[in-house]
Amino acid sequence: MSRESGTTGGRLHLELDRSKGALGRQLESEIRLAVTSGRLAPGTQLPSSRTLAGDLGVSRRLVVDAYAQLSAEGWIVAQQGAGTVVARGGSAVPQLPDAPATRQRLPYDFFPGAPDLSSFPRTEWLRALRGVLHDAPDAALHYPDPAGAPELRAALAAHLARSRGVIGDAGRVVVVSGARQGLTLLGRALVRSGVRTLAVELPSLPLHADSLRASGLDVVGVPVDDEGLQVEALARSGAEAVVVTPAHQFPMGVALSPDRRAALLQWATQRAGRLVIEDDYDAEYRYDRRPVGALQALDPERVVYLGSASKTLAPGLRLGWIVAAPALRDALAREKELDDGGSPVLEQLALAQLLESAAYDRHIRLARREYRRRRDALAAALNAECSDARLEGLAAGLHAIARFDASFPIGPLVQAAAARGVAVYPLGPLTGTANALIMGYAGLSEAAIAEGVRRLAEALASLKLQA
Amino acid sequence: MSRESGTTGGRLHLELDRSKGALGRQLESEIRLAVTSGRLAPGTQLPSSRTLAGDLGVSRRLVVDAYAQLSAEGWIVAQQGAGTVVARGGSAVPQLPDAPATRQRLPYDFFPGAPDLSSFPRTEWLRALRGVLHDAPDAALHYPDPAGAPELRAALAAHLARSRGVIGDAGRVVVVSGARQGLTLLGRALVRSGVRTLAVELPSLPLHADSLRASGLDVVGVPVDDEGLQVEALARSGAEAVVVTPAHQFPMGVALSPDRRAALLQWATQRAGRLVIEDDYDAEYRYDRRPVGALQALDPERVVYLGSASKTLAPGLRLGWIVAAPALRDALAREKELDDGGSPVLEQLALAQLLESAAYDRHIRLARREYRRRRDALAAALNAECSDARLEGLAAGLHAIARFDASFPIGPLVQAAAARGVAVYPLGPLTGTANALIMGYAGLSEAAIAEGVRRLAEALASLKLQA
Repeated sequence: MSRESGTTGGRLHLELDRSKGALGRQLESEIRLAVTSGRLAPGTQLPSSRTLAGDLGVSRRLVVDAYAQLSAEGWIVAQQGAGTVVARGGSAVPQLPDAPATRQRLPYDFFPGAPDLSSFPRTEWLRALRGVLHDAPDAALHYPDPAGAPELRAALAAHLARSRGVIGDAGRVVVVSGARQGLTLLGRALVRSGVRTLAVELPSLPLHADSLRASGLDVVGVPVDDEGLQVEALARSGAEAVVVTPAHQFPMGVALSPDRRAALLQWATQRAGRLVIEDDYDAEYRYDRRPVGALQALDPERVVYLGSASKTLAPGLRLGWIVAAPALRDALAREKELDDGGSPVLEQLALAQLLESAAYDRHIRLARREYRRRRDALAAALNAECSDARLEGLAAGLHAIARFDASFPIGPLVQAAAARGVAVYPLGPLTGTANALIMGYAGLSEAAIAEGVRRLAEALASLKLQA
Repeated sequence: MSRESGTTGGRLHLELDRSKGALGRQLESEIRLAVTSGRLAPGTQLPSSRTLAGDLGVSRRLVVDAYAQLSAEGWIVAQQGAGTVVARGGSAVPQLPDAPATRQRLPYDFFPGAPDLSSFPRTEWLRALRGVLHDAPDAALHYPDPAGAPELRAALAAHLARSRGVIGDAGRVVVVSGARQGLTLLGRALVRSGVRTLAVELPSLPLHADSLRASGLDVVGVPVDDEGLQVEALARSGAEAVVVTPAHQFPMGVALSPDRRAALLQWATQRAGRLVIEDDYDAEYRYDRRPVGALQALDPERVVYLGSASKTLAPGLRLGWIVAAPALRDALAREKELDDGGSPVLEQLALAQLLESAAYDRHIRLARREYRRRRDALAAALNAECSDARLEGLAAGLHAIARFDASFPIGPLVQAAAARGVAVYPLGPLTGTANALIMGYAGLSEAAIAEGVRRLAEALASLKLQA
């Protein structure tokens, strides 16, 4: 049957191997993997237990039991009169990494996309807001400058020059509602200027590609290896613009190598109008050396810089910024004006105060020290508890990749960990690699990291016992 | 010469009448009008003084003096080696009414698009923010629910039901960054659902049409008369959706008549998929009777409700909301997620606190009383000082239309008023009517209104003397 009919019919393509024992467990694992990888979309109807048993040459009892187990775990739902369907979202299928605040939180949550929210500087933020509400003229409450409050643009330009080497004054800055809106506005400005195809890194955040597609661009993926973006593949892709994460690739964690940096800038100069969008999402956190400077500094006309306060303060603030060459900057300000008329003013002024006082730098300095300890705690715990896990991308940022040699798929591990209060996120949906987790460590104390990894190891052991 | 060449050549179409005296003043007025009405776009090159003098049959001296005067006033710019061009923006050409906070403010500013910013409840807002920063869980700082913080959606649903009769619970609400973004997201959701043509009122805010066009819609204008939108013209327009301001048409100030309300709802039901977007931008302020309830209440499936805090608190907050039928609401939440991932959380929670306490209602109640006094002051002052001005659209809102019988164009009046510290805004750019002003009264004290109108009358008298 076709996908449109909402059933899988004979297209489940499950493979069971009698030599690996426990066919029921294998069936459960295969279905979990199909859901985790997206092969089975939410709402898809599964074959009846009788049909599937016939297809697989197993007893109907075995399929009924597997469905019951998956249903109890929340992967699938038995619907009155409509058979069994894949569950819609829910905590059973962790999604990366823009899950809203509304999702179910587990006590040991290795979510990779956010800083430690418990250390958000509430007192300093309130003090800044109090200062703004005390001092700002009434005119500051008027319709804002769509490009952003001049005070914030000036403070950002100075901060980014100092901390990241970014080149550009306040006149090149556009304040946006998080990096997401930065990509949205860039996408629209590019489409309006005639650009059709943009490349993103493969893997990268699916929601970012969605936003760029929604702006009207064709989005193509260009693979990443251990030196970062494969620039030769970019050149073959036909893309006229590319989004990269040079300081700390998301999610793989590698830095763009010096050769690749040079090659990427070379690519940009080879044809007029080519553009590199540098998503500098977590570059404030580099643990082994001083952060590598922004790519933008090497060619401020062809590289657009994109940053946000989501990893330094909190994603809930929705404060981001773009630094662009003058013509593109004006186009972005116009897109911002058309989109929402400009970002909220009071919080822009509060961030400007934090940047101008030492408070922002101090917060990052303290956070960097703490996150380094947490990173070390993660590495130590995984080394002690899961000796077959290999960590990658540890040099910077708020997350690392943990690869597992185990041949069983990662879906059951995610599920078994969740049953023990641990939220881990498979890399699979981003890469197709089923045996790795993307593990954020910034939001958990060292003790919680140790306990979380201990429970993860327990989950791993339980699966090995079953296998 | 063509428009593309950037010069006007022989196409200025200026008309001077020797019987009306002072040809130089007439020339200045005509050029101001051409700029105000948009006939002369910014950057357009004017003919040389010699050419224009020849075309008009006047002395070159007269043209040189007129250019010098207009240049001193900032309407035109003499460029080295490039002749004389129409100035780009600037305070000389008042634009309606989304001028950013950066524009030059005059002491007596009858800007129509904002409430009294000096009465923004800074203390209450800070108190609410303090409460939020004290009480909100860390999870509130996470990536937000794209549809809006649940607390705010619930508070809005209750408030809108009580104050405007709007039908819908928190599940139908989407929080947006001002009404502008509401239109942007509606535009995109409509385009994605297959809608091509949307109607706006004629006149209405040009920036709103721009945002809708940027979303990919064809935007057509449907005229407004003294009963509001002409629904018969809407039916002929081929539009599948329409944006209306039923409570207080912007800018004309009329309310949609009961017959027209019925006709509009009838239009919406005549074909599946038709949609009415109710922009309820200032309905909190009705002075002669209780506010007319929201149109949305009569057909919550076919009418989408759009509101914001821009006229009740301040435009700089960028807080708006949409109430929509479930399917459209889900589509809007998805567009919001793609656009910027959700609005900033802390200020959403602060507004929820203001709504749940009596603070928001009290603020509006006090503001309504004050604005009524200011409206009365405007009417009294115009009656006393400019007996030939006729006020319209006074029953509600934050602005009224002042029509002048004087046959001279409004451009010179705007300019002469500005020279006396008074900012007034011609209706011309919105309607083509050159002899009316749109006068906002909410931002000026009664005394400032009286003084502003006195100066406006002085400006008027000076022009009559010259004429």
